[in-house]
Amino acid sequence: MRDVYVIGCGMTKFGEIWESSFRDLFVEAGLKAIKDAGVDHLDSMYVGTMTSGLFVGQEHVGALMADYLGRAPIPAVRVESACCSGGLAVRMGFLDIASGNSEIVLAGGVEKMNDGADVTFALSTAADQEYECYHGVTFPGLYAMIARAHMHRYGTTRDQLAQVAVKNHFNGSMNPNAQFPRKVTLEQVKSAVLVADPLTVLDSSPVSDGGACVILASEEVAKKLQKPMIKIIGSGVATDSLALDQRDDITALNAVKVSAERAFKMAGLKPTDIDLAEVHDCFTIAEICILEELGFAERGKGGLFTEQGHTALTGKMPINTSGGLKSKGHPVGATGAAQVVEIYEQLTGKSGERQIKNAKIGLAQNMGGSGASSVVHILKNLNN
Amino acid sequence: MRDVYVIGCGMTKFGEIWESSFRDLFVEAGLKAIKDAGVDHLDSMYVGTMTSGLFVGQEHVGALMADYLGRAPIPAVRVESACCSGGLAVRMGFLDIASGNSEIVLAGGVEKMNDGADVTFALSTAADQEYECYHGVTFPGLYAMIARAHMHRYGTTRDQLAQVAVKNHFNGSMNPNAQFPRKVTLEQVKSAVLVADPLTVLDSSPVSDGGACVILASEEVAKKLQKPMIKIIGSGVATDSLALDQRDDITALNAVKVSAERAFKMAGLKPTDIDLAEVHDCFTIAEICILEELGFAERGKGGLFTEQGHTALTGKMPINTSGGLKSKGHPVGATGAAQVVEIYEQLTGKSGERQIKNAKIGLAQNMGGSGASSVVHILKNLNN
Repeated sequence: MRDVYVIGCGMTKFGEIWESSFRDLFVEAGLKAIKDAGVDHLDSMYVGTMTSGLFVGQEHVGALMADYLGRAPIPAVRVESACCSGGLAVRMGFLDIASGNSEIVLAGGVEKMNDGADVTFALSTAADQEYECYHGVTFPGLYAMIARAHMHRYGTTRDQLAQVAVKNHFNGSMNPNAQFPRKVTLEQVKSAVLVADPLTVLDSSPVSDGGACVILASEEVAKKLQKPMIKIIGSGVATDSLALDQRDDITALNAVKVSAERAFKMAGLKPTDIDLAEVHDCFTIAEICILEELGFAERGKGGLFTEQGHTALTGKMPINTSGGLKSKGHPVGATGAAQVVEIYEQLTGKSGERQIKNAKIGLAQNMGGSGASSVVHILKNLNN
Repeated sequence: MRDVYVIGCGMTKFGEIWESSFRDLFVEAGLKAIKDAGVDHLDSMYVGTMTSGLFVGQEHVGALMADYLGRAPIPAVRVESACCSGGLAVRMGFLDIASGNSEIVLAGGVEKMNDGADVTFALSTAADQEYECYHGVTFPGLYAMIARAHMHRYGTTRDQLAQVAVKNHFNGSMNPNAQFPRKVTLEQVKSAVLVADPLTVLDSSPVSDGGACVILASEEVAKKLQKPMIKIIGSGVATDSLALDQRDDITALNAVKVSAERAFKMAGLKPTDIDLAEVHDCFTIAEICILEELGFAERGKGGLFTEQGHTALTGKMPINTSGGLKSKGHPVGATGAAQVVEIYEQLTGKSGERQIKNAKIGLAQNMGGSGASSVVHILKNLNN
């Protein structure tokens, strides 16, 4: 496999973006990424979108975006894995360049969720229709069950859950692209409107519009363009049952664990080698479980690890410096690509107030549904 | 890029398959393909589905199918490009093995269209929602406009259109997996219920359920398993505007032309080197246009080429020996993979009554919408 580098990125502001259509959002992010990379052409494109058919009545998204970016007849493919779609678009671009088929690839994601569709139904298509949705289960309910089980088994506290939101909103308050760039307190999180006990609305990621793109390239192109050498040193994907009831342990996210193991193996690294990570905090409990599956915290200690401040900007393992899905927003198809944008910007010293000093190796973890699919990418700045 | 081989295949019967759910259809095809290839494991999976969110309320299809095939935590990705989804799943599997990332990949497609959804709306999401569907345009209407323009510009006749259906139904009458395995006459096609003038219901592919899968492998694995050496010698993808009105010439399918040029270039072949082809005859006019774009017939002469019998089983360029979308059926996400199944079976002498003698090189062309995306694969039997 050939080496693959990230040579540029771009994203829209996340939020309720009423002035931009579905295609506008992707094109804006794509043009920003192309400009940032300084490339004069693309060899192929991958677009991550979860359920544009249900949200805006539009499938055939690869060709649509290729055309609206002015790039037809470029090869373009849409990939979908629920909220993991953006991360898998990056993965497909990675394989495309690794194979030798392409030199420069645009990989990104987009979702337009605020356009009149039934968001709860549209998102429920990431769960098992026959064994979960049919019985009325929705994602806040699924994650609430995971939270309750984690609290019961490991003693995770309500305050520890809330601390994830407090920390991510603090980070997001310094991110101009964040949907909710404002700080919240523990008390505010706990006393917010209850969505599914014990999770309140401030434990939950919002409904968002947005797009995010990265430009990937071969080593030859990255060197020729004199870009910072940000290499994808690890890429791992894994799956699990869609339905929670079909797993041995609902507090374990096996796809996250296996995808991370695969990425760490490819990179030849261990969790303590990582300087910062973006992880899939669709609900506060998700970040706690993911800390454990990635090996940053011991099994059952993700809540304590958070409470002790290790995941803060100033902690030993900064998590979701962008604000995460919680504060930055969660346009589901775009999220995985936006995570790679944040890691790229951190590794190239472009993160302003929330910059992690001397960040050299970053990890992005993106997952679908209640964890039935997960993709992990590890990026390293080879320059410093 | 490493060489990639097809080492096995499987498909369901196409039709109104009330006894099988969406997931059942893919699992049936997948298990048949795994058995046919004789493999004991898979390294990754690609699933082509157009709009399962709208048809059956289920996205997150890669992980779902991986789990129901008993393969989790295998990496699994769903790819979508409208009716071109199955062909692009094969393309992604090709790149995955070519990159060196995987040795054995399952690539296939599935669609469950007969399950209560509004099929016309669901399919319209392959067109441009803002510039076509909003104004009430549907696919029969779009292809009828292409047909009228082709008749006007090139003198293509009503009988030539109908001849495509007659020929494909003749071929399909020998295919046990076909949805409509019965012969039709020119008069029957022309006098059938009008859908969009000049196209009748017998000029149109049906609404279908079905799944189809192929197993791809590296050269090392193919040799080790002592399989027939059916190599993918060409793979090309291209895109175009979704909306017909944004093209210079609505009788030209530029994505088909460019995807074919890319595949022929990779293979080092020209159209006359091909022994047989499966092409995307969603409507009879589509097959005529595609014959021209692939270089089998001269520009404007696709109808005449058909009328002269060159595309028949006994002609110089047999087209849609399986019966095509027209007779075999068109479960949109599965179609592209099913085309590769037909080519594989023809090249390995398994096509029974419709077998093309001494078939050595076959081509599969799959497209989305009114031609905004197209993928072409060229397979060669290296054994004979």
